[in-house]
Formats: sequence, structure tokens, C-alpha cells
Amino acid sequence: MTKTQQVRLAERPTGLPTADTWNLTTTELPDLGPGEILVKVNFISLDPAMRGWLNDVRSYLPPVGIGEVMRSLDIATVVESTHPDFAVGDTVSGTFGVTEYAISNGRGVQRVDLNAAAGPTWLGVLGIPGMTAYFGLLDVGKLSEGDVVLVSAAAGAVGSVAGQIAKAKGATVIGIAGGPEKCRMLTEELGFDAAIDYRAGNVLKQLRAVAPDGVDIYFDNVGGEILDAALANLRRGARVVLCGAISAYNEQKPPPGPSRYMSLLVFRATMAGFVVFDYADRYPEAGAQLAQWLAEGRIKSREHVVEGGLARFGETLNMLFTGANTGKLVLAV
Amino acid sequence: MTKTQQVRLAERPTGLPTADTWNLTTTELPDLGPGEILVKVNFISLDPAMRGWLNDVRSYLPPVGIGEVMRSLDIATVVESTHPDFAVGDTVSGTFGVTEYAISNGRGVQRVDLNAAAGPTWLGVLGIPGMTAYFGLLDVGKLSEGDVVLVSAAAGAVGSVAGQIAKAKGATVIGIAGGPEKCRMLTEELGFDAAIDYRAGNVLKQLRAVAPDGVDIYFDNVGGEILDAALANLRRGARVVLCGAISAYNEQKPPPGPSRYMSLLVFRATMAGFVVFDYADRYPEAGAQLAQWLAEGRIKSREHVVEGGLARFGETLNMLFTGANTGKLVLAV
Repeated sequence: MTKTQQVRLAERPTGLPTADTWNLTTTELPDLGPGEILVKVNFISLDPAMRGWLNDVRSYLPPVGIGEVMRSLDIATVVESTHPDFAVGDTVSGTFGVTEYAISNGRGVQRVDLNAAAGPTWLGVLGIPGMTAYFGLLDVGKLSEGDVVLVSAAAGAVGSVAGQIAKAKGATVIGIAGGPEKCRMLTEELGFDAAIDYRAGNVLKQLRAVAPDGVDIYFDNVGGEILDAALANLRRGARVVLCGAISAYNEQKPPPGPSRYMSLLVFRATMAGFVVFDYADRYPEAGAQLAQWLAEGRIKSREHVVEGGLARFGETLNMLFTGANTGKLVLAV
Repeated sequence: MTKTQQVRLAERPTGLPTADTWNLTTTELPDLGPGEILVKVNFISLDPAMRGWLNDVRSYLPPVGIGEVMRSLDIATVVESTHPDFAVGDTVSGTFGVTEYAISNGRGVQRVDLNAAAGPTWLGVLGIPGMTAYFGLLDVGKLSEGDVVLVSAAAGAVGSVAGQIAKAKGATVIGIAGGPEKCRMLTEELGFDAAIDYRAGNVLKQLRAVAPDGVDIYFDNVGGEILDAALANLRRGARVVLCGAISAYNEQKPPPGPSRYMSLLVFRATMAGFVVFDYADRYPEAGAQLAQWLAEGRIKSREHVVEGGLARFGETLNMLFTGANTGKLVLAV
């Protein structure tokens, strides 16, 4: 029997999650049955989408139930196995949840190669954020060489990869981020052509200055006023890719929608939503391409690893909503 | 020299146009130069888009200038010609404006066949509204047989044709209109499968009752709360076609956008705007198909012809915004 700490949902938050949202519990896991693995979790992925899973509403995944272990994607080490595909010592990714140890039947579990990239990178560029950036930009956004691409939350896990993919594909890339330090990183370290600091004033005015002819793709991670600014400055035939709306995730009422949505008509533009899980059978294609770009140095991985284990899960998650992280936010267990 | 009455833009309205918006003037037209025609206007098309042309903002067409003759599409008779392509007595359509007589160099002017359909029908099913419905539904909306199609302003010029095209193509069609009489017409005369009276209460609730599995296409002519209701009840992979937003055209501030826009993500859906003029080179294809459906009785033409000439232009235009018309609204000169 293995003892494990776990973070469970204690109550549904009405705004930003608080200490009352979570319960840190200790459980004993049973012995393995046939075809199972016991894993020890090393890194837990923190994702804006987690906030949505806390609401009791219909969405692309069912909500996390009260009293259930919080859902998360992790990097873990196999410490016991009765499963033919996994050996003790394997490093794997899987939806094991916010826990120290977990038992799995292997469904959705994949081996990861620590020689190719470190654990946190498998939750970032080579994980769901990388897949999201890749399919959102190339499939949903239909990126072409020469496009002008605008990315919001550009210093975040998905945005930082989306912008670098666009650069690798020959686009002109503008990132929107909060504060001069993130903006400096975008242009000086990640190769963005321009960066807009949304805390430094009127985003539309700044956008018009750097993209006077409008943008072909807007990759939206934030919603709100920044989405409206982008809609006001599209090029004809533009594609708005809806990846997220982090500005709204902690609002108690649906926030106002994009009042400039009729720009889609004026510019003959399209706004499309997507869910990365629909592309699961093409993850290998994206993973191979991203790994190649990483190896060539055309894409740089940025991870923000918080130490301290499960007790810091709640405060670490909230860093996403205050913009405190740069790159992929990961909790080390 | 020909004397003509003309309706000119006197001042830009801030909400619904008023009597002060318009000036009824009398002008003498010069003699024809070479390659010109003099036409006598018989029917003037009234279109929701006209309201947008009165605002001094960047859009798909320049605004009508103060003091200029109001832009409109008309059906007219050629009464003098020095143009090789047009003979006296020809019936033509063209953007002659809100006027009794006009001189044209023939650009954009097309002969229409009154044996195939009466003048007002050439401004409705066989005119821009018909083209808008056709390309919006088939090209932008990518209609497939078996789709569930929702149309707003379904008793209007575009909506009534869009719904009938969808029926002719094997879709299930739900129309939204104001009042029991329009709803009755949709289901009993135009063959819609169901009609929702938006004046009779919660549109989303009514919609869920008639389309419990959601809709594949929402053809939006109105925006506002009805757009939000549709967004909340999409099917996976749905297409929202933005054709207009009549609920907002007389608002002085941009109205709130669709607060449910993130449904596009949940349902992997697309919202796309279009402008019918982009399809001008394919009007003959659409016109031939629509004329065939008309002849077969699969599409019925509904026109609302107001008599009384140019003096009634202002009040007739406003009928569009109060929902007083059924089918294509036309002013007889």
C-alpha cells in the first residue's frame, strides 16, 4: 500500500480560487491489479483551462466533481508495473491528477524521452501547449508564409510557442504581453518582430502602430478588450483563432462579448474555436516537428517551475490569472 | 433637359433616421453624352445596409456624403440611350439612387427580363437579397443535406430566401421572426419546419424546444440577444454566418458583442462574415438556380411594395427597423 497526498476540489470557487477551494488529503492507494502501473509524479502542469473544469457547466470535458482529485496532466516515473507496455523506471506523461502517486491502467499514458527534452518541456513545447499552438496556428489559423500574426498572452505557454512557430514558418509576428520584461523577452529572446505591452495603454493604438495594414491571424488566448482591439485591426480574409479567454475565467457573469465582432463581416474574416484533444491522432506529427525545431534552436522552451509540492498547488495555479508566470507554469512535486 | 426629384442625405442621423435626415430636392439633368443612358426609376430597393452607409465610418463601401443622392439599387426603364448595349424601353437594374430619373454610363447596369419575373422580384429573390442568401448559405455556411439551419429575420428579404434555399437543399429549417403572423407565413406558406416568435419570450428556450440537438448553421441577420441564443445552442462543427446585425444599426454606441462567443470553442464552431459583392462574378450562377426554383414553385417570392414615390422614402426605410415589412421592401416611384 502506498500513501499519497492529493489535492481535491473542496468547493466550487465563484471567482479566483481561494484556499477554501482545495483540500489537501492523504490516501492509501491499493495494491496493483493486473495491467496497471503505479507512478510517482514529478511535475504537474498548470493550465488556464483548469479554471473552467471547476465550474459546473457543460463544456468539452466534464467538470471536476466536489471531493474528486483535481485533474491535471503530469510527468511521472513508473515505480511499479503489472502492465506489459510500461517498465519500472519509465518516465511517462498522463492525466494522473494533482497527486504524489497514482495508479493507472495505462490509458492515455505515453512514454517520454528525457534525452530529447527535460520533464517540464514535455508539459510545454512538447506537450499540450505545443500541440495547441501547432494545430491552432496551422490547421485552424491556416498560416501562410508572409502572414502578419498577432498572439496574445504571448509570454505564456501556448502563446510563446505559437509566436515561434509562426516565425519558423516565415510570418511576421507581434506578441501582446503584460510588462516590459515579458515584452523584452519576446523580441530579444524568442525572435518576435514586435511586442505590445497591454499594461502600457491603448492596445489598439499600439497595434495600429506596429501593424498599420492589419493582421492576417489573431491567435487569441485572452478575450476581452484585447480581442476587440484585434478585431478592429484585421486584414481582409483574416482568421481569428479562439484558443482561450483567460481574462474571463474567474468572472462570475459571462463578460461582455467582442463588441467589434461585425468586423468579421467588414474584413470577410472568420473566427473559429477549437479543442486540441480533437487532434490527438496527429500529436506525433506535431511532436516530431516541434522536437526538430527545438533541436535546431528555432524554438526555445520557456518553463516556469515552482518548487514546493502539492501544498503550493492553489497559489501556483493563481499565478496564471495574475500573469505572474513566463512560459509554461509547472509545479515540481 | 430632364427634371427629376431626388432624395439627398441632409445630415447624418444619430439613431433612427428622421425627417431631418433627408432632403427632397429637384434637379435638372444634363443632356446625354456619348455612351450614356437616361433611365426612369420604377422601383427602389430598401435595404438594412443603407443605415450603415449613413455613418461616417470605414466599411465595405464608402459612406454616402452629406448632400449626395442616397445610394440605392433600382429597377428602371431606359428612356434615352446613346449606349450601344441599351435600347429605349429596356428594363434594367442599377445603382441609380433614390431618384426619379438618372443618367448612367452603363457600368454595373444589367438588363432584366420582366417575362421571367416582375420588377420587385428582381430586387428580391433574383436581386441582391437572393444572392446574399445563396452565397451566405452555400459558400460561407457550407450547407449540407440534413443540416439543421436556423435563420433570423426569417420573414425579411434575405432570411425568407435563405430558409427556402435550405429547404430546397434538404435541410431542416427553423425561422425566427417577430409576431404570430410572420411565423404563420414561414411555416404555412414558405415551408419552414418551425418558427420562433422572438416577441413571445425567451428565444433560447424556444430554440431548445425545436432544436434539442442544436443547429449546424445559424444565418444571422440581427445580432444581439438572438445571436447569443443561437451560439448557446450550436452543434459540433457549426457555422455561424454573419450577414447583418439589424438590431444594432440604429444604436449610437457599439452594442455589447455576443457574450456567448466562447461557444465557438466548445462546439468547434466557426463564425464568418461576408459581403455579397465579392461574389459578383458568380451572380449568374445563383440567378439561374434561383430562377429555376422560382419557376418550380420551390421558392416563393415575397415583396412588400410601398406606393407613394420619393416623398415616402424616409418612412419606408424605417419600416425595416421596426419590423413592419414582410419580405423584400420596395418603394414604387
